[in-house]
Amino acid sequence: MKKELAACTVHITGLGLMGGSLAMALRGKVARLTAEDIAPDVLDAALAQGVIDAVGEAAKADVVVLAIPTHLIIDLVPVLKVRPGALVIDLGSTKTRICDALDRLPPDVLAVGGHPMCGLAENGYRHAIPTLYDGARFVLCETRRTTDGARALAEALARAAGAQPLWMDRARQDHLTALTSHLPHLLSFALMRLAMDGAAEDTALYELAAGGFDGATRLARTDAAMIVGMFSTNADQIRQMTGQLRAHLDRLESLLDAPGDLDAELCHIVEARRAYTAAYGERLIT
Amino acid sequence: MKKELAACTVHITGLGLMGGSLAMALRGKVARLTAEDIAPDVLDAALAQGVIDAVGEAAKADVVVLAIPTHLIIDLVPVLKVRPGALVIDLGSTKTRICDALDRLPPDVLAVGGHPMCGLAENGYRHAIPTLYDGARFVLCETRRTTDGARALAEALARAAGAQPLWMDRARQDHLTALTSHLPHLLSFALMRLAMDGAAEDTALYELAAGGFDGATRLARTDAAMIVGMFSTNADQIRQMTGQLRAHLDRLESLLDAPGDLDAELCHIVEARRAYTAAYGERLIT
Repeated sequence: MKKELAACTVHITGLGLMGGSLAMALRGKVARLTAEDIAPDVLDAALAQGVIDAVGEAAKADVVVLAIPTHLIIDLVPVLKVRPGALVIDLGSTKTRICDALDRLPPDVLAVGGHPMCGLAENGYRHAIPTLYDGARFVLCETRRTTDGARALAEALARAAGAQPLWMDRARQDHLTALTSHLPHLLSFALMRLAMDGAAEDTALYELAAGGFDGATRLARTDAAMIVGMFSTNADQIRQMTGQLRAHLDRLESLLDAPGDLDAELCHIVEARRAYTAAYGERLIT
Repeated sequence: MKKELAACTVHITGLGLMGGSLAMALRGKVARLTAEDIAPDVLDAALAQGVIDAVGEAAKADVVVLAIPTHLIIDLVPVLKVRPGALVIDLGSTKTRICDALDRLPPDVLAVGGHPMCGLAENGYRHAIPTLYDGARFVLCETRRTTDGARALAEALARAAGAQPLWMDRARQDHLTALTSHLPHLLSFALMRLAMDGAAEDTALYELAAGGFDGATRLARTDAAMIVGMFSTNADQIRQMTGQLRAHLDRLESLLDAPGDLDAELCHIVEARRAYTAAYGERLIT
């Protein structure tokens, strides 16, 4: 029989922005919080602040949260030591390859893939905040190790963090996230890379950059390790989206000299963007 | 002999976000502020709020500020009526074609091209704020109608608005701005257009979108008329930048499956982006 979340020991592997913020949000809502991290000073800080109860290990927990870069989750899952009946959930931004790995966990282990749709441009425990998950969608993906009890516990974890659980098939999540998250990151990096060329040619470039440029390149401030995990584990979907984006760029470029047609096309897009804001609000990544 | 700015009647053609914010910033710093706009309710509001002294016409002013979309400035300049000795300055985001038009003004008229590097995602007088220009670079371009007096008056206007004047050749400004402003806008529109396709296929797409997507598409909220002016008057430079961006996208895409090389490339970009923030601060367009 599954424990309630409030009676569980929750262990977080990786106390960065996502794991650290989760720990802060779960304080007082679970029986015991433990964590491990490659940075001893992060664990010291979390202990000193009372964010975690102890430095611990996955093998002693009821719920194990994998909060490390996506490609590292894929490497870790096959060698993960957890006790029978424990629930493993991850926070990686791509789900197909992670859920494929979770499928192969021992039959007595429970597992759900997870992807909370929140973040900041900066990473690391020192940027962690207890409100990071508030109101965010928390995608949950079934695996072969997902029972009814695992579903309930994963939903309880998402809600305890402040987020809204949203069940979704792993392939669909990766297809949609390639557009909503991975491609924006790729564009941000490509634009910043181009600006580096531009600034090398003419140092006045950065003098002329303002809020539009800053916003368009903000995602290129994110830690490279996290982005490598994101890109390398969803490469096919990202390439497909980039191809489609190029087609829209082609079309817009072909209209640059045709103000009438360009205006009609842009008005159509502005209308959709404003309707989106009206329906979902506007979230700033600061 | 040129008047000091404080003794001038300043007339603003177009009381939108940029013109309206300029009027607010200039209140009390010039002898008289007049404006014209295609929207009578905007003029009524500006009069009622004391932002302008009167609805007026360019022909009676010492300084005429053209604060309408770029392509409309190019249409207006050849038929503009101003008095001898008056200074014409514009706020359009591309400068080559506007300055070419300003070059052809009557020899007794003064003219400087202008491009303040500030803005908001939303346009229109109702979003105007007196602090919009604070600390922004205000690009100024010489024309054949730029005298020493015109230079001094244009600089005084930029400073009175709260901005820092930055003299620059028209072609160089358009080359640099194609990268720092126009391309980010184009990418934002292309990404939002792609999202419209994606959401039409799967309505969950917008549910999964979060801060990264919102930031990457925020510029696609801008009024289409302004963007048409921006794109259509700098099309060649924008195409050149888009071509260079595609090359960087190609390269990043080729690395998606090579985590080691990808990490090295992304780290290099993240480092540059963080150095940029450290040097210039971070400006959010809200």
